[in-house]
Amino acid sequence: MRMNRNRMAAKSSKLSKLGEFGLINSIQSQCRNTNSSVLLGIGDDAAAVTAQKDHTLITSDMMIEGVHFDLSFTTFHQLGYKFLAVNISDILAMGGKPEHFIVSIGVPDTVNAKDIEDLYSGILKIANKYNVSIIGGDTCASLQGLVLSGTLTGNARHFVTRSGARVGDSIYVTNTLGDSAMGLKLLNKRRKRVHKFTPSSPGLRVIKKHLMPDPAPLGTVPALTSMIDISDGLLIDLSHICDKSKVGAMIYKERIPLSKELTISAKKVGIDPYLFALKGGEDYALLFTAPENNKIKAIKIGEIIKKGRYIIDSSGKRSTFKPEGYDHFDNTARNSQGNRIE
Amino acid sequence: MRMNRNRMAAKSSKLSKLGEFGLINSIQSQCRNTNSSVLLGIGDDAAAVTAQKDHTLITSDMMIEGVHFDLSFTTFHQLGYKFLAVNISDILAMGGKPEHFIVSIGVPDTVNAKDIEDLYSGILKIANKYNVSIIGGDTCASLQGLVLSGTLTGNARHFVTRSGARVGDSIYVTNTLGDSAMGLKLLNKRRKRVHKFTPSSPGLRVIKKHLMPDPAPLGTVPALTSMIDISDGLLIDLSHICDKSKVGAMIYKERIPLSKELTISAKKVGIDPYLFALKGGEDYALLFTAPENNKIKAIKIGEIIKKGRYIIDSSGKRSTFKPEGYDHFDNTARNSQGNRIE
Repeated sequence: MRMNRNRMAAKSSKLSKLGEFGLINSIQSQCRNTNSSVLLGIGDDAAAVTAQKDHTLITSDMMIEGVHFDLSFTTFHQLGYKFLAVNISDILAMGGKPEHFIVSIGVPDTVNAKDIEDLYSGILKIANKYNVSIIGGDTCASLQGLVLSGTLTGNARHFVTRSGARVGDSIYVTNTLGDSAMGLKLLNKRRKRVHKFTPSSPGLRVIKKHLMPDPAPLGTVPALTSMIDISDGLLIDLSHICDKSKVGAMIYKERIPLSKELTISAKKVGIDPYLFALKGGEDYALLFTAPENNKIKAIKIGEIIKKGRYIIDSSGKRSTFKPEGYDHFDNTARNSQGNRIE
Repeated sequence: MRMNRNRMAAKSSKLSKLGEFGLINSIQSQCRNTNSSVLLGIGDDAAAVTAQKDHTLITSDMMIEGVHFDLSFTTFHQLGYKFLAVNISDILAMGGKPEHFIVSIGVPDTVNAKDIEDLYSGILKIANKYNVSIIGGDTCASLQGLVLSGTLTGNARHFVTRSGARVGDSIYVTNTLGDSAMGLKLLNKRRKRVHKFTPSSPGLRVIKKHLMPDPAPLGTVPALTSMIDISDGLLIDLSHICDKSKVGAMIYKERIPLSKELTISAKKVGIDPYLFALKGGEDYALLFTAPENNKIKAIKIGEIIKKGRYIIDSSGKRSTFKPEGYDHFDNTARNSQGNRIE
């Protein structure tokens, strides 16, 4: 995908002057497709892609300014990166390969063409990593904040749902948890954008994980039974697997992987790092179940049981857990940009 | 698709109490899929559908409260109907068959669960007409207005773009134009919702065309060369075909089909009805080009020429036209719910 920066730079003006069709032309030149599966990209009534051999996966995410992001904390480039990242994470969580992205944006008067170019540069950065093509979308005015809505397709020969976990399966996660929620906490204190992440402190590293999460596909796992991505927090997302699979779960608190950065930052702010790991969302690690197998390259954190949901700590103390974390309709979460800790 | 009304009625409460997951469950029970191509619908990280034989078409539309609709003019049912209608129109404009719809909604505090049920009842009403399945989406809070973003897939053995019009082709439209824009004008005067369209006056009939447009597929047209749906207005949408096909166009003003209702209403408001037909958008009729053929069941309004864009009236007077109509970023259009006449 080639970006025509000179042409865009000349258009760094208010969108009301550029107009909707001008903006669509700019975006179109920024998002040229080289992927042969795209027969027709941006610019007609619909995009056209070749039919796929396997199953087609489709996921959608909406991000609203003031609810999911705060433009005083994130650059447009970072926002674009995260916007596609969360959609990629959903396709990976189904065991699929991400393929085509459709981007709709509602643009307020305060946002100019350069901002939209930066947004797309972030989308394109992660799109290139995952070989995703931007094939279309809709662009319109918004009276209040910036609104992003993306639909990502993917394909999979066999897809993995939330509903196949069986009693006796082990529970695994693919990455450390809690970093993103800690990053958000630090951003809430800092209250300004981070333009450069180097030289990197532990704080900046968790902030980067919040602003530009990097979902990673699961390697080969024999007899995988269920999978979800951790977007709402471990307790909520594990509860989704339990609900859908009609099973219970037992997790060993101290087996939950924590990053060094989270541990250091948590000590500084005086909060138990496991609180971030259990209830903080937006880590975009994968959570899955499978019969135990030492070939699995992931961290085992628990087991699927018949009934009940428990956390056991190293002293052997067992407590039940509820699906607690962030809920988009919970008013207390409104100002916290996606995660809730306190 | 079966709707569990009792269950929903009991939930007619503020969404903050119901919570995001409660809302997703409600929507899920409202949108049961019976279509065999849907392997996995609402409720997992992504939806899964069977791979298609032909080409896959994908279109997306975003509708923002205060920009595209005014809740004092439209019921939630009507809004849901129109929301899917505009997406269906895009797939029909590619010569495709609509298939799967993904719905994302940003819900403000002022909207309750009953409103969302009504919205979905409108979506489902037109979905059933076109055999469209609702397969997923995203639901989140919005701090300001209601935000709708939909992605519709379709399939087509051969799809039709905007770029194939050739010199000598005839220009056709499939339905009367201007009704929707007149309907909006009357709604702007009336400033309240219409709950029943019977008994129907000419005014109510154009209002219904604005609130609940019914896109219709094109029948068989031999040697179809280009097509677009009239969403922004005839002059703008025909200009898109000219731009993409690198041709000019000549239209005969009096050949543009007007409904009796538009003519009567235009007389009452004292404005030339052709102004509505030429510049008013949201008719969702199809505009296409093909070599002239008397088997084509559509209205011929002009011809594709080498260069220039002209309107000729019955007196023989020729004037050039520009792509004028509604532009989402034009501030003067802000309060006009999608169309602009004056």
